[in-house]
Amino acid sequence: MNTFGHLFRVTTFGESHGPAIGCVVDGCPPGIAIAPEDFAHDLSRRATGKTRHTSARHEADEVEILSGVYEGVTTGTPIALLVRNTDQRSKDYTAIAAQFRPGHADYTYWHKYGLRDPRGGGRSSARETTMRVAAAVLAKKWLADRFGVSVRGCMGQIGDIVPETHDWHAVEANPFFWPDAAQVPELEAFMDALRKSGDSVGARVTVVADGVPPGWGEPVYGKLDGELAEAMMSINAVKGVEIGDGFASVAQKGTTHRDVMTPGGFLSNHAGGILGGISTGQQVVVSVAFKPTSSLRLPVQGVDVDGNVVDVITTGRHDPCVGIRATPICEAMLALVLMDQALRHRAQCGDVGGVVPRIPPSAGG
Amino acid sequence: MNTFGHLFRVTTFGESHGPAIGCVVDGCPPGIAIAPEDFAHDLSRRATGKTRHTSARHEADEVEILSGVYEGVTTGTPIALLVRNTDQRSKDYTAIAAQFRPGHADYTYWHKYGLRDPRGGGRSSARETTMRVAAAVLAKKWLADRFGVSVRGCMGQIGDIVPETHDWHAVEANPFFWPDAAQVPELEAFMDALRKSGDSVGARVTVVADGVPPGWGEPVYGKLDGELAEAMMSINAVKGVEIGDGFASVAQKGTTHRDVMTPGGFLSNHAGGILGGISTGQQVVVSVAFKPTSSLRLPVQGVDVDGNVVDVITTGRHDPCVGIRATPICEAMLALVLMDQALRHRAQCGDVGGVVPRIPPSAGG
Amino acid sequence: MNTFGHLFRVTTFGESHGPAIGCVVDGCPPGIAIAPEDFAHDLSRRATGKTRHTSARHEADEVEILSGVYEGVTTGTPIALLVRNTDQRSKDYTAIAAQFRPGHADYTYWHKYGLRDPRGGGRSSARETTMRVAAAVLAKKWLADRFGVSVRGCMGQIGDIVPETHDWHAVEANPFFWPDAAQVPELEAFMDALRKSGDSVGARVTVVADGVPPGWGEPVYGKLDGELAEAMMSINAVKGVEIGDGFASVAQKGTTHRDVMTPGGFLSNHAGGILGGISTGQQVVVSVAFKPTSSLRLPVQGVDVDGNVVDVITTGRHDPCVGIRATPICEAMLALVLMDQALRHRAQCGDVGGVVPRIPPSAGG
Amino acid sequence: MNTFGHLFRVTTFGESHGPAIGCVVDGCPPGIAIAPEDFAHDLSRRATGKTRHTSARHEADEVEILSGVYEGVTTGTPIALLVRNTDQRSKDYTAIAAQFRPGHADYTYWHKYGLRDPRGGGRSSARETTMRVAAAVLAKKWLADRFGVSVRGCMGQIGDIVPETHDWHAVEANPFFWPDAAQVPELEAFMDALRKSGDSVGARVTVVADGVPPGWGEPVYGKLDGELAEAMMSINAVKGVEIGDGFASVAQKGTTHRDVMTPGGFLSNHAGGILGGISTGQQVVVSVAFKPTSSLRLPVQGVDVDGNVVDVITTGRHDPCVGIRATPICEAMLALVLMDQALRHRAQCGDVGGVVPRIPPSAGG
Repeated sequence: MNTFGHLFRVTTFGESHGPAIGCVVDGCPPGIAIAPEDFAHDLSRRATGKTRHTSARHEADEVEILSGVYEGVTTGTPIALLVRNTDQRSKDYTAIAAQFRPGHADYTYWHKYGLRDPRGGGRSSARETTMRVAAAVLAKKWLADRFGVSVRGCMGQIGDIVPETHDWHAVEANPFFWPDAAQVPELEAFMDALRKSGDSVGARVTVVADGVPPGWGEPVYGKLDGELAEAMMSINAVKGVEIGDGFASVAQKGTTHRDVMTPGGFLSNHAGGILGGISTGQQVVVSVAFKPTSSLRLPVQGVDVDGNVVDVITTGRHDPCVGIRATPICEAMLALVLMDQALRHRAQCGDVGGVVPRIPPSAGG
Repeated sequence: MNTFGHLFRVTTFGESHGPAIGCVVDGCPPGIAIAPEDFAHDLSRRATGKTRHTSARHEADEVEILSGVYEGVTTGTPIALLVRNTDQRSKDYTAIAAQFRPGHADYTYWHKYGLRDPRGGGRSSARETTMRVAAAVLAKKWLADRFGVSVRGCMGQIGDIVPETHDWHAVEANPFFWPDAAQVPELEAFMDALRKSGDSVGARVTVVADGVPPGWGEPVYGKLDGELAEAMMSINAVKGVEIGDGFASVAQKGTTHRDVMTPGGFLSNHAGGILGGISTGQQVVVSVAFKPTSSLRLPVQGVDVDGNVVDVITTGRHDPCVGIRATPICEAMLALVLMDQALRHRAQCGDVGGVVPRIPPSAGG
Repeated sequence: MNTFGHLFRVTTFGESHGPAIGCVVDGCPPGIAIAPEDFAHDLSRRATGKTRHTSARHEADEVEILSGVYEGVTTGTPIALLVRNTDQRSKDYTAIAAQFRPGHADYTYWHKYGLRDPRGGGRSSARETTMRVAAAVLAKKWLADRFGVSVRGCMGQIGDIVPETHDWHAVEANPFFWPDAAQVPELEAFMDALRKSGDSVGARVTVVADGVPPGWGEPVYGKLDGELAEAMMSINAVKGVEIGDGFASVAQKGTTHRDVMTPGGFLSNHAGGILGGISTGQQVVVSVAFKPTSSLRLPVQGVDVDGNVVDVITTGRHDPCVGIRATPICEAMLALVLMDQALRHRAQCGDVGGVVPRIPPSAGG
Repeated sequence: MNTFGHLFRVTTFGESHGPAIGCVVDGCPPGIAIAPEDFAHDLSRRATGKTRHTSARHEADEVEILSGVYEGVTTGTPIALLVRNTDQRSKDYTAIAAQFRPGHADYTYWHKYGLRDPRGGGRSSARETTMRVAAAVLAKKWLADRFGVSVRGCMGQIGDIVPETHDWHAVEANPFFWPDAAQVPELEAFMDALRKSGDSVGARVTVVADGVPPGWGEPVYGKLDGELAEAMMSINAVKGVEIGDGFASVAQKGTTHRDVMTPGGFLSNHAGGILGGISTGQQVVVSVAFKPTSSLRLPVQGVDVDGNVVDVITTGRHDPCVGIRATPICEAMLALVLMDQALRHRAQCGDVGGVVPRIPPSAGG
């Protein structure tokens, strides 16, 4: 199961410290203009090594298009994308090949497969998400061109710090995808202290899609929200997913939560743009909880593959807050799910639907 | 997309007020002993009309086994289960056939399909979940017989009320699946007042699986936690899913969150029994947020299918807290995901794995 | 694996002598007008017991629509169809429950599942194909309404007898779906003699689809011809499938086989309407080889489940030529494959294609 | 749809004259020993340019393993294999970019996708089958190691020439995979004359698997024979597939066709090793019809993309009998289907089955 999607299918491959990572995008509509340089922007946003707040690993992440594109446009055949790994440093990890790092997949891989590639976490490394971001570039293009759908994201919490204001313009102007510019110095100080301490911290990311037409999503299984939940939970270190008000709904009354429709627009969006598994035409809102990374240079008592007690020290290059780089990954998963649902909707209902008036996303806008 | 699962596939069908609901379970291992009466216990736990705290609809929910069982055991061929609807009262709903109820799938179905079955919510009704519970009876049996896996669940919050103690014995002894017997009178009073007010409230459900061996789950897509997230989010009214500590992980440090392994057992279970998408052998813990139902007799301004302003009053029989009956449904989805993952693990890795010592779920237990 | 199709998915269930057979059609477009009586014509064409040349079993084959249809049209939700078995006569088969009938699935089911439902062949009976024919009624309607696609079939050979002329009008006017009316008396004599002898014979069926637009089919796997091959081979007793000239192509030269295109039309159709896995717009032509049924009242030496030598006599009601009733089944599979490919084409390429002039199917027509 | 298989999934990518072709093998069991040089033997058998009887294109076909293998064994994660194209000669094809070659996918691709990669047939080239052969190397290894299954194939007919004897030892000793050594000179003369004439011819290939245990295959859809039919039909230029006696069954009587079982073994194998979609334990026998290639240097009148009449001359390098190199490809597809069915059988029925005595494949052997 290294394929994501039903009709727009992304199959990824590659280990963190193997020769390369890559993906095959199958089911892509023909006629999308794409060039190797189109991948650079989003890949750069998720890349490590650009600031002191992320892992020191530096990868060029140059995408080679191996197939499926002719004279600059997709042809409808599978699009293979390849990124060579150049900064593996396998030697960093050899000491822990026979140990189970707490909070990692070491132990579970051994029990699943009977063996494990220990180099940099192998397949369980977040390096795999590079190819999700690359594949989503195609999805974002098609969604934008055909429907005007746009996808964006930002951080919603790091440790105990939450944004006091929300300004989309601030998000791309700081290394934390943080929507409140005034808090960036506080965050930098917090992260510097955290890094020095050798510890790590969790984070919350929120991604939204604007312009999604009503009617996308399957009503029972394969719901739009259901597939978003799986998509986000498939990102390394994710422990929770919310749609719209999420867990805050638990304490709400129905009279509060139900989003009133008027001919001039919806009056609220507690639902996060999805009702009955199908998009309402409002903004789709997804929040994601990232755990603190377990790769710490602070030693911890552990167990090795023979059942002996050992001291586990993880000496590689790691992110003190894996959630920081996760914003473009969450955006990518949102785009991939929307793309897939758009194609599925077109398959079953292509030329029906839309027989009732469309209500604006918001009465205000 | 009315099929859940990859190898243990449950296809459900039926509308709330159609002649019947049912499912086809495909890929079921042969040799499981099953009889119509085996479904009664779990179906009764999710049934409406048993106390004043749930919808007044009363269905017998008698399961007819149409295929796939011979001389009391499954044969490996598809198992079709049928439940006739007997208490539909379609007339309750005719007044709102041309209206969009806020917070319901009315509007989204129109935009998806260009038409809608208005009788009792049609396919979008929670009545569909009856068949999930029925199908999961097969999964629970196999999981228990082969691996000693047990699945159970309880309420974790209703409105602002949270349990003060946790006693599994209390859960089945009150109509709320509530783990703190002392709070039941308070809950009853709260629910009575809520029902009289005509409003509704959200809820949080937690389900756990004990006995899951390490090694189940796919490591990238099709992760155990990813599929649990989709499974839970596919239940009507769900807005959030957490694995283990979930959103609480955001504010945690890595030194806290990472669950230390010792030869005598894991020292904590912040991860909720899953690392890298694969089970650790600890208790699998999933929490689910249910929104307050939007079917309220309190009127609200709305829109009809022609775009006109209307007063929407929902006069049918509804649950003031849909989360109450959701506990067995969440258990069912947990069982279905585990069953499917167990078969997939057996397919790929059947006779490998387990070459390293197994660590007990908990150092205490 | 009791589901056929990727987007138009038909899941069948039921045993020959169980309480019922049925299917769930998922992914069906909304808005197709359908009523229970629409199934009668095609089900009658494949039914047994109408002439002395087919099995004496007589089933009413009344279809109950359990879901997915509201006010006479499909709603986009799963359509469950149910047919009760009424003429099972289980007692006919009890004598052979512990025997392996040669040429039957008895032996293979035992080895696959470790047990077997012996009543009338259980799941391996051709009774299952009833539901394929029923499901295909929906597909045929949509294909005809949207694209003018029509599907029809006839016998191409019984034993050594081949038609000397081909007249579509003759096909439905005799019990053999035979396209040469003059040969019907010869066939009747042949079949009467065969039935008296207790033996059986093979048959060849050819089905065609007219009106298929160019561009349907996946080019590598999931080819239109590939899926037709699987579809036909999934019918009981099929041993071979040909597209267009089929095995006759082996002795052909390229200058003969390649179908010349002119602006006025294709000059031949050796390809059977498919090139590179994709429809050309010509008639799609599929031929299917049926083996002689192995259910004979002529005794044969065999083996029982304990490995002992036994005399096997099959005393049930059987078809002396299973291919006779197979024509509507082959038509059904052709329609189901086309329907599925049409939806998949719409998903990926919906509004592209057709930018080059369309060449008429035939220069003559 | 560029993925073959359900549990052992092979996704191929690449165009004939693009930078590379490749595949991702997902779901492969861990622990299979594999090295780049293991692919050489089978790839060499299907390669062009080794004798004058196949296309003059010469590709090194060096396989790079990009992922999924650690220290020489598969790890259970996806295995990406890459082969760079080195001898594309795109210039050979530019003249026909705007023409529809008769018998090719040019016309159908245009109608499907609205555009086409004309370089060497693009995706529709048989070059894609290189990766099927590569992927099947993994399958063959696992099938041989676990079950002793072996797969092999030979030519059964070229034009009107059929083997007079059958000797497996002869097959690999001539460039035609021909089982009758005495006929090789006749074949060489025939092929030389054909090549000089500029024409092409069809062929028949037969592949067999020995050692398949009884019980593999799904009984209704996803039958072993059904999937073999699709697998073979997915190979370029295939027009027919037979299992066992295939179309010869049409003229057979049931008393002839049904394969009698005795405790000492089956007395015949008309069924080709499959009953009810499930393997019997006998030799699995599949025959495949290849059409004569349509790429001929003999001119033919045709149509261009604007609907004008043109003279079509195909000047590239082509096989006069594409069936010659198809033997290893058919073997590969047989191995891939068996591998997938083996895993599916293990998933559903893992530890059941085999409760009845196993009958030897043949009473003679």
